[in-house]
Amino acid sequence: MEFTELEKIPAEGTEEFVFNQTMMRIKDPKISLDFYQRILGMTLIKTLDFPEMEFTLYFLGYLRDEDLPVPENAIARTEYAFKQKALLELTHNWGTETDDAFNYHDGNSEPRGFGHIGISVPDVYKASARFEELGVEFVKKPDDGKMKGLAFIKDPDGYWVEILSANGLAELSIQTD
Amino acid sequence: MEFTELEKIPAEGTEEFVFNQTMMRIKDPKISLDFYQRILGMTLIKTLDFPEMEFTLYFLGYLRDEDLPVPENAIARTEYAFKQKALLELTHNWGTETDDAFNYHDGNSEPRGFGHIGISVPDVYKASARFEELGVEFVKKPDDGKMKGLAFIKDPDGYWVEILSANGLAELSIQTD
Repeated sequence: MEFTELEKIPAEGTEEFVFNQTMMRIKDPKISLDFYQRILGMTLIKTLDFPEMEFTLYFLGYLRDEDLPVPENAIARTEYAFKQKALLELTHNWGTETDDAFNYHDGNSEPRGFGHIGISVPDVYKASARFEELGVEFVKKPDDGKMKGLAFIKDPDGYWVEILSANGLAELSIQTD
Repeated sequence: MEFTELEKIPAEGTEEFVFNQTMMRIKDPKISLDFYQRILGMTLIKTLDFPEMEFTLYFLGYLRDEDLPVPENAIARTEYAFKQKALLELTHNWGTETDDAFNYHDGNSEPRGFGHIGISVPDVYKASARFEELGVEFVKKPDDGKMKGLAFIKDPDGYWVEILSANGLAELSIQTD
């Protein structure tokens, strides 16, 4: 293996950096917010409107006990949001929702780049059964293809969301070492 | 405002879901791993090779005191990785690094979709000064454009990395409420 895992490479000045967000553009916030909250279980933490530039940002994430309390005050909550790890920032450019011809590009067909976001769950099969009941579209069901116990679903814009579990994927490391 | 922030929408079955990763495809792991470790300060937590399918996955993230200890054993470390919040998964499809004509698509020009990942830092100006010294390419320097105190840099593949700070952006919420 060419690269050393867990290597402490000096990067002075980055000690308090936090991987705060991943941004994806969405066609229709009504549909996306329903998907990320009701189907994936995230919470809408903060909305930021930019009327002059005609877009709105929606910040979602998983709020667990250790993340509470969340400030009620809008300014304090915005500050809170930007200190969190693992937020999803959904950008809505006003008007796309009424344009039938409009679609964003998911990155998994040419030209490729971004691949997916990934959600770690206790049980991929259980999670997938629930997604099926809820009418979610699958790219890969857990037992499709070579990698069993791993699924990919589509969000309303067609972005891929990987559904993975820690115990399920740990076996893959046997190939490496 | 149309959507209620902090609304508890029932999503039974998602209580232990974790936003684990964002995946981006990279042309050259040598260059990208140097960027994300030496320049952005992340740690390479796990590498997974898939020789039959000719690709390698690199999982990076910020390891802070609360994230330690990281298991030394490869299988345990893979399991650990897939329980973390906010990992970056960099996918290297073998051979792209020697193809001069090859580029991935960053999502901010047509066809658009994915926008960026965002790193929250204590001081955007300080972080940006250091990035400049290190020869990092900027999309937006902190004082460019309308939104002061916010920067965007490019990673080696041209993906945008937002450099933001919690106190700097908290003021934006005044527009909303």
